[in-house]
Amino acid sequence: MKLWRVVGFDDSFKDDLAYIVGCVTCKDYVEGFLIDRIEVDGWDVSKKIVELISNSKFYKQIRCVLLSGITFAGFNVADLEFIHESLGIPVVVVLERYPDFEKIEKALRNLEGFERRMELIRKAGEVKKVGKVLVQLKGCDLEFVDRILKLTIRKGKTPEPLRIAHLVASALIHGESRRR
Amino acid sequence: MKLWRVVGFDDSFKDDLAYIVGCVTCKDYVEGFLIDRIEVDGWDVSKKIVELISNSKFYKQIRCVLLSGITFAGFNVADLEFIHESLGIPVVVVLERYPDFEKIEKALRNLEGFERRMELIRKAGEVKKVGKVLVQLKGCDLEFVDRILKLTIRKGKTPEPLRIAHLVASALIHGESRRR
Repeated sequence: MKLWRVVGFDDSFKDDLAYIVGCVTCKDYVEGFLIDRIEVDGWDVSKKIVELISNSKFYKQIRCVLLSGITFAGFNVADLEFIHESLGIPVVVVLERYPDFEKIEKALRNLEGFERRMELIRKAGEVKKVGKVLVQLKGCDLEFVDRILKLTIRKGKTPEPLRIAHLVASALIHGESRRR
Repeated sequence: MKLWRVVGFDDSFKDDLAYIVGCVTCKDYVEGFLIDRIEVDGWDVSKKIVELISNSKFYKQIRCVLLSGITFAGFNVADLEFIHESLGIPVVVVLERYPDFEKIEKALRNLEGFERRMELIRKAGEVKKVGKVLVQLKGCDLEFVDRILKLTIRKGKTPEPLRIAHLVASALIHGESRRR
């Protein structure tokens, strides 16, 4: 367990500019960041996450990829299966509230690739409850998620990698970190 | 002491692109980031630091500004006195090793504004030892610095705000955090 690392990704965007930020931690101790741009309402978020991790010096030590949701920079939808299979690492989406799938579907209708985006959302699988959070997962079970959450949370219910990735992404767009 | 915040600034640059990143913590707990661009070998770092802090929601709670050095983005030299007097907050430069002033002076000779840059470096004052680090300070004493260091260090000898600001700045330029 000693060399286990976790990486948490969050995004922030404004107009056409969007960042994906990964924060790598050992338990709750920050060890590094992975940063790139992604396309607003685009298709590149999964590929960018896989590239950032597989090109990183932390790759071999990362035991879990946490995502702040499955949609980034508008409706750039993450493909959990692709990320999990490309990296061979469990992927866990951590949600604060139950997604409003009806609302998402309605918004997606205005975008190109409606069916493909809906397919990615369906493929993400069932939303399950672990402790105080909701999760969707690929490549691990709820017991594993529970352990990861316990190791990475300092205060409240957000794991440090996701909490800090959010603060950085937000400051990149707004100059200063904002609340979700 | 409960609501005390500290902000630590570090930079990273490549070619013409340079970022200044501030990490705000409460003791060793990350609370937010302040991010802007600065000019390589320019004159704007002090003004940018003052603006980032005074426009921040954390301003009233920040009790100490830590800097990773007095030169940012090449030789954009910080004016400690200006930062301290503009904000009314103590400013502490935390150094890992004693600066090679001869080498700095030699490098500065190739830049415009040589005398003005040397004046800022001289004004920064004496390098003093506190615990395991070297510091230059404005608006506080060594006892205050010692307390701030003890509150903000988790491992090693670098306060969390400076350590994490460095990791973010580095990832912004290189895509992934690098060592100093």
